[in-house]
Amino acid sequence: MITRMSSLFLRTLREDPADAEVPSHRLLVRAGYVRRVAPGGYSWLPLGLRVLRNIETVVREEMDAIGGQEIQFPALLPKEPYEATGRWTEYGASLFRLKDRKGADYLLGPTHEELFALTVKGEFSSYKDYPVVLYQIQTKYRDEARPRAGILRGREFVMKDSYSFDLDDAGLERSYQLHREAYIKIFDRLGLDYVVVAATSGAMGGSASEEFLAVAPTGEDTYVRSTESGYAANVEAVTTPAPPKQPVEGRSDAQVHHTPNTPTIETLVDFLNAAGLDRTFTAADTLKNVLVKTRAPGEKEWQLLAIGLPGDREVDLKRLEASVEPAEVSLLEEADFTANPFLIKGYIGPKALQDNGVRYLVDPRVVPGTAWVTGADKADHHMVDLLCGRDFTPDGTIEAAEVREGDPSPDGEGTLVAARGIEIGHIFQLGRKYTDAFEVDALGADSKPIRITMGSYGVGVSRLVAAIAEQSHDELGIVWPRAVAPADVHVVIAGKDEAVAEGAERISAELSERGVRVLLDDRKATPGVKFADAELIGVPTILVVGRGLAKGVVEVKDRASGDRTEIAVDEIVEHLVSLTGR
Amino acid sequence: MITRMSSLFLRTLREDPADAEVPSHRLLVRAGYVRRVAPGGYSWLPLGLRVLRNIETVVREEMDAIGGQEIQFPALLPKEPYEATGRWTEYGASLFRLKDRKGADYLLGPTHEELFALTVKGEFSSYKDYPVVLYQIQTKYRDEARPRAGILRGREFVMKDSYSFDLDDAGLERSYQLHREAYIKIFDRLGLDYVVVAATSGAMGGSASEEFLAVAPTGEDTYVRSTESGYAANVEAVTTPAPPKQPVEGRSDAQVHHTPNTPTIETLVDFLNAAGLDRTFTAADTLKNVLVKTRAPGEKEWQLLAIGLPGDREVDLKRLEASVEPAEVSLLEEADFTANPFLIKGYIGPKALQDNGVRYLVDPRVVPGTAWVTGADKADHHMVDLLCGRDFTPDGTIEAAEVREGDPSPDGEGTLVAARGIEIGHIFQLGRKYTDAFEVDALGADSKPIRITMGSYGVGVSRLVAAIAEQSHDELGIVWPRAVAPADVHVVIAGKDEAVAEGAERISAELSERGVRVLLDDRKATPGVKFADAELIGVPTILVVGRGLAKGVVEVKDRASGDRTEIAVDEIVEHLVSLTGR
Repeated sequence: MITRMSSLFLRTLREDPADAEVPSHRLLVRAGYVRRVAPGGYSWLPLGLRVLRNIETVVREEMDAIGGQEIQFPALLPKEPYEATGRWTEYGASLFRLKDRKGADYLLGPTHEELFALTVKGEFSSYKDYPVVLYQIQTKYRDEARPRAGILRGREFVMKDSYSFDLDDAGLERSYQLHREAYIKIFDRLGLDYVVVAATSGAMGGSASEEFLAVAPTGEDTYVRSTESGYAANVEAVTTPAPPKQPVEGRSDAQVHHTPNTPTIETLVDFLNAAGLDRTFTAADTLKNVLVKTRAPGEKEWQLLAIGLPGDREVDLKRLEASVEPAEVSLLEEADFTANPFLIKGYIGPKALQDNGVRYLVDPRVVPGTAWVTGADKADHHMVDLLCGRDFTPDGTIEAAEVREGDPSPDGEGTLVAARGIEIGHIFQLGRKYTDAFEVDALGADSKPIRITMGSYGVGVSRLVAAIAEQSHDELGIVWPRAVAPADVHVVIAGKDEAVAEGAERISAELSERGVRVLLDDRKATPGVKFADAELIGVPTILVVGRGLAKGVVEVKDRASGDRTEIAVDEIVEHLVSLTGR
Repeated sequence: MITRMSSLFLRTLREDPADAEVPSHRLLVRAGYVRRVAPGGYSWLPLGLRVLRNIETVVREEMDAIGGQEIQFPALLPKEPYEATGRWTEYGASLFRLKDRKGADYLLGPTHEELFALTVKGEFSSYKDYPVVLYQIQTKYRDEARPRAGILRGREFVMKDSYSFDLDDAGLERSYQLHREAYIKIFDRLGLDYVVVAATSGAMGGSASEEFLAVAPTGEDTYVRSTESGYAANVEAVTTPAPPKQPVEGRSDAQVHHTPNTPTIETLVDFLNAAGLDRTFTAADTLKNVLVKTRAPGEKEWQLLAIGLPGDREVDLKRLEASVEPAEVSLLEEADFTANPFLIKGYIGPKALQDNGVRYLVDPRVVPGTAWVTGADKADHHMVDLLCGRDFTPDGTIEAAEVREGDPSPDGEGTLVAARGIEIGHIFQLGRKYTDAFEVDALGADSKPIRITMGSYGVGVSRLVAAIAEQSHDELGIVWPRAVAPADVHVVIAGKDEAVAEGAERISAELSERGVRVLLDDRKATPGVKFADAELIGVPTILVVGRGLAKGVVEVKDRASGDRTEIAVDEIVEHLVSLTGR
């Protein structure tokens, strides 16, 4: 195939678009791959659509390889199935909702768990039908609060979503591992630098879950990784290693101290260190009790929740939310304090909480035998040497404290450092949330119903175009990996000589016959303009046909390294066929 | 490729779906190609998606062959461009409208004229850039009042829409003809029986336009064709041949007759024939004056419009609407008669209309020199021998009278007969409606701006799946043409013998290696069930591997003709490779 730039619907831009925040956005617009139509809505111009399709092909091949069967659902979906699972409301403002001419409620599908579950229920009935993996490569919609970075976070985007249906947990685990391996193959083939991180599951529900993040400083997702091991996780998924328990016997009794003017942990620590006690205190020795309220899905009433954590750490709201999901979290208002007069702001201690029936969860560092400075439930008073497991017994632990660089890695090897990435894939062991909602059962060999268990797996297909460009570019433009490039060879006619044009045309025709996809710059433009566009567009191999042709040579330039090689005209076709692997 | 029915996500149904009105709907559901998700919303199961993709490929190849460049727009579009052209309101209830989280208005794109015009304006500037043809194969949305017949008239569907951009009318004519030829190739390759009919342009605006209709008695579109020539047209597009003018000199003077109790044309004709005049009258000798009101786009006021047509014909509202487009038409209410007391119901004549400044358009059969019986603008009175061109002069002609079977064909050859079809393609010479709205100009060689002229061309890609099934089925199931079939050969393992299964597997593997797409029925089911499913699914060639295998033969059945041929096992692979053209 030869694509001629003289007639191609492509105009490269010399200027960066005003709204571009990240390199991929800047370069994809400048090189004429995408154009903005609306906030978070982009059109794909000819070369952009080719890159997108190339990625789709890789994804499709690997999904087919694990036995996935491709189907396709509408994007415009009726409200009812999403109401049955609660997602109609849970999605909040990020769901595009609309009414049809009869006033019936519809939504634009963000993901399709409900529909796949219902469809499998409709078609399959026997245990012999399972397992099955279904997928689609489809346009999805999310009304992002802040669409940004071009196609990196759009409101309309292409996703591969697949769903596995298994008879038991072991089957789900197999389906999950198959997807995990398929995703590794996909992202390897696309030449990406990525990490697989432990993840929480967001609005999907369910348990075991991992995210694939393309490493990129411009990425929206923060994750942590170990300095020593391969451990990597979303901040929400990091578990805090518990220190060893300590004995309770023979420890100092708890004492109440009058601590005037100590509204903050800093002033409290300073006060105690100046009080002439037998040791030095730090913020990490204090136990901060933070009050929030939570509400379970479908409930009307909010419940108080107290979180005890070392005073040198703040509550990370995202980690807290992930921990109490699917319940909502809200901060306390003044009215809540008024209604609960036992809550003495700045001096809340475990005793009043537990005496008044407030659920009390602590950071995993608060293990039996640890001694704490904490509130005495009385203004200007604190407890010292309040011993966990002796003076108070929490209702359990919770992951709600901030994670810091330098914290020990949960796997015991090395410490954590923070990094940023772009979410390109997500795999979930959903379990039975959706099959319970729709009663998706198979009839077992013993004629008893078996509740099906589900997995859900996504690849951000259109986002991958940006993620690849984000990782693979230089100051001149994009550098496409061969697997996704819009062409194999970019042939530049460098010179006005008729013989040069004829030579380039002949080579292009021969390459095309051999299955090499050629982008031929046959425009009436200066070599300088053509070279700049070739670098910007980013086809991996650039063939320059110019004055050397008279001496029987052409020049091959490697876009990534910039290396130039002179090749004899007689050998160029074989050289490029072999180089491009066509 | 081998697709195994033992694991395929496919369950055929023995019963017709309750809501199925037409054979394609019935069979596509029963054979497991599509499933209903919402009114006018269908999911594509694995085999259905394959048929859809095969059609897409044919369409894409022929669009590429005429130099079309594929791009892709979002389906979720901002209101503004559609407001600029008036289509935001013109589309009425058939447009899906929604708001985003910020309250901004959006629509789900029904067609994309606005966006393509704006995009070309954004990229191109010089006359040297033109012509260009852009297309997309994309999901479209229309909130049909009555979604019906499965995927034949859905609310979410796949369409190929393309748009041509030319510097002048001759260029547009060339682009139009290129599309016309491409469409003929597409529909020929898909094995369709279709007609190309002259059409009006509907809400798109513009002038020259043709529709491609797949001939089908269940089709929604009525068209007429000549018994003698190749003439075919939508009823809205039929032009009425005018009879020759007649001399005015020496003709009888018009007379007023007292015609009591003649409220209808029938009673009037009977009265006159009983009145002892010198001739016999028929309804065709009377001139019926029908009053409506019209309103131009953007206007507030309605204007009266009188239509004079032979008394033996009714006004066809669709033809009338097409004639006055883009103005709206409404029937008169009692208040309109009160406001215009010169309109004497049942006795309206040309004189009062023209004396009172009412625009008066007549059927093309009302030519100068024709004599008419018509109202005398006075209750119980009619005029006889009122001569067109002498006693009244209409303001022009209008195509508003019903078209009847037996009417002369507009091309002068034969008479018209009515038929029904499914609209599968539509080509328009839009002209400058959209380029005027967005001022899409090219800078000419003389540095003066040239307003670009546009064409718009659609193929109903998902509808084609149904149209083909509608034309190509029998009482047992679908009969796919080879170009779109979900597989090349349906291999049925007919027998429980291990050797039979092994033989079928071996043949399937060899076929697959040769590029033949095999659907292998390896299920544990009776041969009867398997044969019935093979007929229902409709792969063009069925290979039965059964008891004959022991004698070294297998059976090839042609799905369309039902012909069965025994072929030696040694020759079967070559036979099928050659038969399927792989």
